[in-house]
Amino acid sequence: MDIERNKDNFREMFRKKDFMALKEEMSVLPSQDVAEILNQMEAKESLIAFRLLPKDKAADVFSYLSDKIRAAFSKMIEEDELKSLIEDLFFDDKIDFLEEMPANVVKKILKGTPESERRLINQFLQYPEHSAGSIMTIEFVDLKADMTVEEALSHIRYTAPKKETIYTCYVIDNQRHLLGTVSLKDLVVAEPNQKIDDLMDKHIIAVKTDDDREYVASLFKKYDLLSMPVVDRENRLVGIITIDDVVDVLEQENTEDIQRMGGIRPSEESYFNQSPFTMAKNRLLWLFALMVSATFTGRIIQRYEELLQTMVILAAFIPMLMDTGGNAGSQSSTMVIRGLALGEIKSRDALKVMWKELVVSIIVGISLAGLNFLRLIAIEKVNYAIAFVVSTTLIVVVVLAKVVGGLLPLLAKMVKIDPAIMASPLITTIVDAMALISYFKIAGIFLKI
Amino acid sequence: MDIERNKDNFREMFRKKDFMALKEEMSVLPSQDVAEILNQMEAKESLIAFRLLPKDKAADVFSYLSDKIRAAFSKMIEEDELKSLIEDLFFDDKIDFLEEMPANVVKKILKGTPESERRLINQFLQYPEHSAGSIMTIEFVDLKADMTVEEALSHIRYTAPKKETIYTCYVIDNQRHLLGTVSLKDLVVAEPNQKIDDLMDKHIIAVKTDDDREYVASLFKKYDLLSMPVVDRENRLVGIITIDDVVDVLEQENTEDIQRMGGIRPSEESYFNQSPFTMAKNRLLWLFALMVSATFTGRIIQRYEELLQTMVILAAFIPMLMDTGGNAGSQSSTMVIRGLALGEIKSRDALKVMWKELVVSIIVGISLAGLNFLRLIAIEKVNYAIAFVVSTTLIVVVVLAKVVGGLLPLLAKMVKIDPAIMASPLITTIVDAMALISYFKIAGIFLKI
Repeated sequence: MDIERNKDNFREMFRKKDFMALKEEMSVLPSQDVAEILNQMEAKESLIAFRLLPKDKAADVFSYLSDKIRAAFSKMIEEDELKSLIEDLFFDDKIDFLEEMPANVVKKILKGTPESERRLINQFLQYPEHSAGSIMTIEFVDLKADMTVEEALSHIRYTAPKKETIYTCYVIDNQRHLLGTVSLKDLVVAEPNQKIDDLMDKHIIAVKTDDDREYVASLFKKYDLLSMPVVDRENRLVGIITIDDVVDVLEQENTEDIQRMGGIRPSEESYFNQSPFTMAKNRLLWLFALMVSATFTGRIIQRYEELLQTMVILAAFIPMLMDTGGNAGSQSSTMVIRGLALGEIKSRDALKVMWKELVVSIIVGISLAGLNFLRLIAIEKVNYAIAFVVSTTLIVVVVLAKVVGGLLPLLAKMVKIDPAIMASPLITTIVDAMALISYFKIAGIFLKI
Repeated sequence: MDIERNKDNFREMFRKKDFMALKEEMSVLPSQDVAEILNQMEAKESLIAFRLLPKDKAADVFSYLSDKIRAAFSKMIEEDELKSLIEDLFFDDKIDFLEEMPANVVKKILKGTPESERRLINQFLQYPEHSAGSIMTIEFVDLKADMTVEEALSHIRYTAPKKETIYTCYVIDNQRHLLGTVSLKDLVVAEPNQKIDDLMDKHIIAVKTDDDREYVASLFKKYDLLSMPVVDRENRLVGIITIDDVVDVLEQENTEDIQRMGGIRPSEESYFNQSPFTMAKNRLLWLFALMVSATFTGRIIQRYEELLQTMVILAAFIPMLMDTGGNAGSQSSTMVIRGLALGEIKSRDALKVMWKELVVSIIVGISLAGLNFLRLIAIEKVNYAIAFVVSTTLIVVVVLAKVVGGLLPLLAKMVKIDPAIMASPLITTIVDAMALISYFKIAGIFLKI
């Protein structure tokens, strides 16, 4: 558990070139921890340490290494060593690695692998990035319906070491059509001579290879699954997805949503692994678009230049009105974006959302306006007319902001844009314009200017 | 899978009072789907349908019902029925339910349960809300180190139906100290006469009852676990945590972060389950605090009133500068908040973050300023001096915003505040003030006013 101390130990042994101790230490540590330490070392030193690992652990550690260090390794080691390393990987880890490699390296690595496996690998490499196919693996246990429990268990016993999970087994016919699933729990509890056919669960929750991985994750969450079968259009079993990969998908999807909501083009690389130029690029597009649209707000101010010149005090409340509007709007859009992501809100709920935001915004708007009115009179010593105009504008702005903030993500969803885009930066810009126009109109009416 | 059609079927059968068909339909559907439909029905009708469920499925469905409908049920049904229902629940679901109930109902329900169980339940009810103890269960398989594989398997076979998971078994001594874990996979593959002692994994990844559930989730993610033991201070096994509950924790933590980042006090209730008043309350605090702080921005404008009056054109660029600064800052804070949540960034990385944000912000600032300068000259037809002032301010604002946006979440983390609070609404307000001051200072220098 104490990874920091382990890291220091590790470096110390390396410095002393005490490779025996290093080998011992690495065999005791979980693969994930070994990988975490190797990721942070110089590529050359990292490779030396990596080569001290026993063959089976090496493959496991390799699957947890960062893309960066794996790319460095693959440049430093001989083709044969790379090949034998990849052979030991689980199928989904193999695909993950090959996806990162340049095409010519992939070609070289695949040279010599049997035709059938090469075809399978190419098929897996072609599944679109966010599809169920892209996160599945082929190391599952398949059973036949006419097996007895005893036969099934001995089949599992024999094949288990090469499988990603044996806790759910998949019952298929000779054409590989998926007939049912049976858990190892049920097999262990059942009588040895029971038939799989009688034992298996025929209500299968499965996905297709081209289903979106977010949909896959939502099924895992809802049905508390440990693994799930993936079938093709003819209901033939092509792979399974396991919960550990789904947990990663959930975190990635959350990161993507959060980045979009922060006005950043999403990236799968971690903060420190992105170069400053990539980072700048991912941020510039939105900033520029929003900068240009913010000039509309500027135009509005210009249009009311005369009014402002005769009553400069009005300018002092512009930031407060704009900010409060922006914040109120982004509160609503945040709630709706998250509700959509969790499936609590559906596109068809637009009217319900509008109504809810309307009620909430009236409560919020009146409370804020009331507090603000008192503050302006008592603390800021503003005259009643201006306090009234500012506070009334506040109600209008909060109501508009919350209704627009609640509806825009739904609108995005309907036209198949990611609702997360409709978060604070964009909402703020839209609401700013609405806030200013309301302000000047209301001032025009009540201040008779 | 086609839950919408199922729901319609369900309602149709209910309307026709075809309870036989309803019973049949419910026995086929997964418990989660039955619960989803029952959640959306009138409490009375929902209870009628619920009572048609067979005893074992009823407990399962009950554990997926919403808090609201469960509260309604517990008011409508007799004490005895409630008691027998609760007896069938898994221990963690039982605790979840009892937590929602008023103290006097809990007392009534627990009357008559054996002293030892009552004490255990009270112990579990006392674990703090976000602790490992609050999400653990007691239905695990425990083995002794001197058992053979055969003995272990027959023990598992006998106890399996009452366990939440049998895929990892926990080896304990007579004082319940945790000695190791052994997976069902290893048991199935091993020879029948092998000793558990030789087979078990002694490198245990465990947590303490009072560890934070977010830490628990991070270990599950890192080590790809399906379950994890929870021990007390004397290393005695008190419970286990399973991956399905961890997935829920992950989603709740993400929701909390996203809501905090949107300037909302987090709530575990779903969007439509929150009353408008609760919602307004959760949003008002931040809005009010930010509204007051935005008045500082107003003060700054007031201080430069004269300058603005002599050069009203300057006012037109205030929204653009403020918005761009706010957006640039919230981009950085978003990246850092997420990096902290995922463990990619640690508190000690402050200098590295500052440096990274500095480099990125200079690239972004200069690019934006360049584009803006051209736009002002070519499209807005502004004079060179003003275009220069506005664009220079833009660089300063973007750099300040990004550095502050990157550092504030780290500062929050250091003083043990949730970094997610340092997101767009707060950053925007802080950056607004910085933007205005820079603007007026720069204008003062270059426009000689």
